[in-house]
Amino acid sequence: MEVDLNCDLGESFGVYKLGNDQEMMKYITSANIACGFHAGDPITMREAVLLSLTNGVSIGAHPGLADLRGFGRRNIQISPKDAYHDVIYQIGALDAFVKSEGGVLRHVKPHGALYNLCAEDATLSEAVVEAVYRVNPDLYLYGLSGSKLIEAGRKLGLKTVNEVFADRAYLENGTLAPRHMEGAVISDENTSIHQVLQLVLEKRVKTITGSEIPLQADSICLHGDGNKAVEMAKIISSTLKNKGVILKPFL
Amino acid sequence: MEVDLNCDLGESFGVYKLGNDQEMMKYITSANIACGFHAGDPITMREAVLLSLTNGVSIGAHPGLADLRGFGRRNIQISPKDAYHDVIYQIGALDAFVKSEGGVLRHVKPHGALYNLCAEDATLSEAVVEAVYRVNPDLYLYGLSGSKLIEAGRKLGLKTVNEVFADRAYLENGTLAPRHMEGAVISDENTSIHQVLQLVLEKRVKTITGSEIPLQADSICLHGDGNKAVEMAKIISSTLKNKGVILKPFL
Amino acid sequence: MEVDLNCDLGESFGVYKLGNDQEMMKYITSANIACGFHAGDPITMREAVLLSLTNGVSIGAHPGLADLRGFGRRNIQISPKDAYHDVIYQIGALDAFVKSEGGVLRHVKPHGALYNLCAEDATLSEAVVEAVYRVNPDLYLYGLSGSKLIEAGRKLGLKTVNEVFADRAYLENGTLAPRHMEGAVISDENTSIHQVLQLVLEKRVKTITGSEIPLQADSICLHGDGNKAVEMAKIISSTLKNKGVILKPFL
Amino acid sequence: MEVDLNCDLGESFGVYKLGNDQEMMKYITSANIACGFHAGDPITMREAVLLSLTNGVSIGAHPGLADLRGFGRRNIQISPKDAYHDVIYQIGALDAFVKSEGGVLRHVKPHGALYNLCAEDATLSEAVVEAVYRVNPDLYLYGLSGSKLIEAGRKLGLKTVNEVFADRAYLENGTLAPRHMEGAVISDENTSIHQVLQLVLEKRVKTITGSEIPLQADSICLHGDGNKAVEMAKIISSTLKNKGVILKPFL
Repeated sequence: MEVDLNCDLGESFGVYKLGNDQEMMKYITSANIACGFHAGDPITMREAVLLSLTNGVSIGAHPGLADLRGFGRRNIQISPKDAYHDVIYQIGALDAFVKSEGGVLRHVKPHGALYNLCAEDATLSEAVVEAVYRVNPDLYLYGLSGSKLIEAGRKLGLKTVNEVFADRAYLENGTLAPRHMEGAVISDENTSIHQVLQLVLEKRVKTITGSEIPLQADSICLHGDGNKAVEMAKIISSTLKNKGVILKPFL
Repeated sequence: MEVDLNCDLGESFGVYKLGNDQEMMKYITSANIACGFHAGDPITMREAVLLSLTNGVSIGAHPGLADLRGFGRRNIQISPKDAYHDVIYQIGALDAFVKSEGGVLRHVKPHGALYNLCAEDATLSEAVVEAVYRVNPDLYLYGLSGSKLIEAGRKLGLKTVNEVFADRAYLENGTLAPRHMEGAVISDENTSIHQVLQLVLEKRVKTITGSEIPLQADSICLHGDGNKAVEMAKIISSTLKNKGVILKPFL
Repeated sequence: MEVDLNCDLGESFGVYKLGNDQEMMKYITSANIACGFHAGDPITMREAVLLSLTNGVSIGAHPGLADLRGFGRRNIQISPKDAYHDVIYQIGALDAFVKSEGGVLRHVKPHGALYNLCAEDATLSEAVVEAVYRVNPDLYLYGLSGSKLIEAGRKLGLKTVNEVFADRAYLENGTLAPRHMEGAVISDENTSIHQVLQLVLEKRVKTITGSEIPLQADSICLHGDGNKAVEMAKIISSTLKNKGVILKPFL
Repeated sequence: MEVDLNCDLGESFGVYKLGNDQEMMKYITSANIACGFHAGDPITMREAVLLSLTNGVSIGAHPGLADLRGFGRRNIQISPKDAYHDVIYQIGALDAFVKSEGGVLRHVKPHGALYNLCAEDATLSEAVVEAVYRVNPDLYLYGLSGSKLIEAGRKLGLKTVNEVFADRAYLENGTLAPRHMEGAVISDENTSIHQVLQLVLEKRVKTITGSEIPLQADSICLHGDGNKAVEMAKIISSTLKNKGVILKPFL
């Protein structure tokens, strides 16, 4: 049994610091590095690349909407054409830092609003997937497990990674329960860990209504900010290892 | 006798249009494409790449200072560290568009204030040159003929291209006469053409004081904006061809 | 019979020029000046203010979404809280230029996507209207005739200006026909002029389905860009004057 | 004996948090609020305004260079024309928040590189001072004690506030010792407090070479970031009060 643990990193900007990149590196197997549109700047990007290489963590680009003030979380009605171009630009920028340090870019995972918009929008997903493919068809595509993004990636021939969350509840159709719903965000540690174990070991999840559904779990998304981020990463990592699960990236 | 004709292109931004990219393509052999910091945006960048490929024009990255309002022409006291990272970022972004269209990135030429700062600052030049080299040691480096930038490039082992100007007067030490100096900008067409011919055929130039000095002229910079830009490009191109000079890029 | 003719101006940015501000000034009575978020920069803003004062044209702020690349035309899912703050910021910035030149700011008209979002969203409109009111309750609020924005403004006690378009067709409920609809954009000059006359003289408009509905027309929006912009402004202005309509701003 | 204690505040941006605004408010009498160019955003600006009003702290605009990545600390070769316009824009933006909350804007203090450039450049200072004056001639101008900025303000008829630093050493000519100089930054708490007391009580300072010079000290600049910021503010405030100095802003 194997699983990948990924985390969004490199989200600082200029004098503004965010996240616990150095600490998170100890527990994750893949890093999604911000590319300067919703967070990150050239110096921060290279630092995150170097940190990943030092820690043997696999490197991915984490392109987002051009919205620094909103941290890429505000929905912008971006056209597929804009998305196609913005994703190519951002992958290229990060890839240059990876190459200049002798590393290899392995995956792409859209950020925030772009990730969510793609999850439900096949046309937008096709544009993003085309962008990834045109830059490098060997890149892995990360997306919400079972989403339109994953579907579009598979159709075009990209290797896809179905991502699941430790701290978010699922609806019966396998999508995330919207944040405004009661119980959508799982704050209880034990519930989170139980959900992760069920996802990894059984490829199933107990939904917000109590029923159980199958759900592909290739990678678990860990959050890098917040007070308990590092602690949770540590617990999830060690719990999985204790169950005999091998933590490894997609290479 | 051979020479390269280069021009800055892809300088539009969003709804804002600048330059005559389509027309200039007919007369140049190399395009320096803006990378989104001082001008250009992802869509504009890809359009300039496509236009270059269609016209058989060699493609280069044209990184600048992060100053859209000032078009990269205002001196920003950028540290070598900032410059190193900003140049890698921009080269990578453009390269992704080139690759995704099946082309090959051939050169890098800093823009505006970054170009001018580098011309006189060896330390800053070393940072820029290191950035180019680390991304791809096969890239050509364009810089002001005989400048610190060219010197730094040669030292590190980059192939360098000494650039000269048709419409700027030179001082006796081979640097450009500052714009505020009387006669620094050559507006007379015939004088421009005569300067180009002397540079290409004799590798010499008549300075602003009337003396003649040797000056390496591997590539001539043509301007893409202004009323007479296209016309001048056409005249310079045909005049050189008539003299038997072969126009070709550095590949 | 009186009517106001307004136009969006000051939309250049740095080296990028847009519009025919100088020419349009001759035909309009009110200028909506971009405030730097979707277009415009401090120098452009002051130039537009000076041009307005010289031409006796009434000055308004034209706040937009923070989206220079999209010219404020892309829908950003902006929260009422963000909108409130962004509008105050932009009004203040423009007002400082107006005051520093001895003028008086008279109105506020949201731009592009913000204008359209407000037209149909009462909650967003309330935030924008509150922002205008809190900065200065004497400001006129421009909005799509009969829209949620106008309604919100009236409720709070702002003086409102119902804006109509010469070149856009209307639905039977008095809203604009969406651009993708056949016949939504009126390209025929005579139809445009006829629509303007009917709106101003009869306070009615023939809708896209052929029926006629009443529509309040306090101000006509003229477009400042495009080849025929100035010509159309000239024709509309002179036609109205010939019919005895007095062109005057809201002061 | 009276003195003003001022601090730069409102320097957060989007999700990025900076400084201890809430805590610093307890010890200062004047707040310099960032205006969105080098730091700050509309929501952050209004929060800082509200916090100032609640704490009875006098409010000033803190305009900076348009350089979020560099936090306004990188020298940009800004023309007096650009500076004039950028300062008006930023003052206006902040003033709108102050007015919309029923407050009064009292002063302007340039930030970072703009502050330092003005200190030594009379022409740039004249442009900044003219901008302040044209927006509102009753505003106080804060600048480095004895600098070109203060001189330009006085010449034009602005009320000026000579600012001194607790943690920076002075040269014999009354300017700040450059940061790279040994001993330029005072890290010892007692030395800082002694310098403040000497400045406020004797209007003199012991320079980096050991000699004593007269120096006007109308306001002391306290830093809001760093581990010891709040503690130092507290100590300086209480020490001054204990010596019978009245802490009060310029109204």
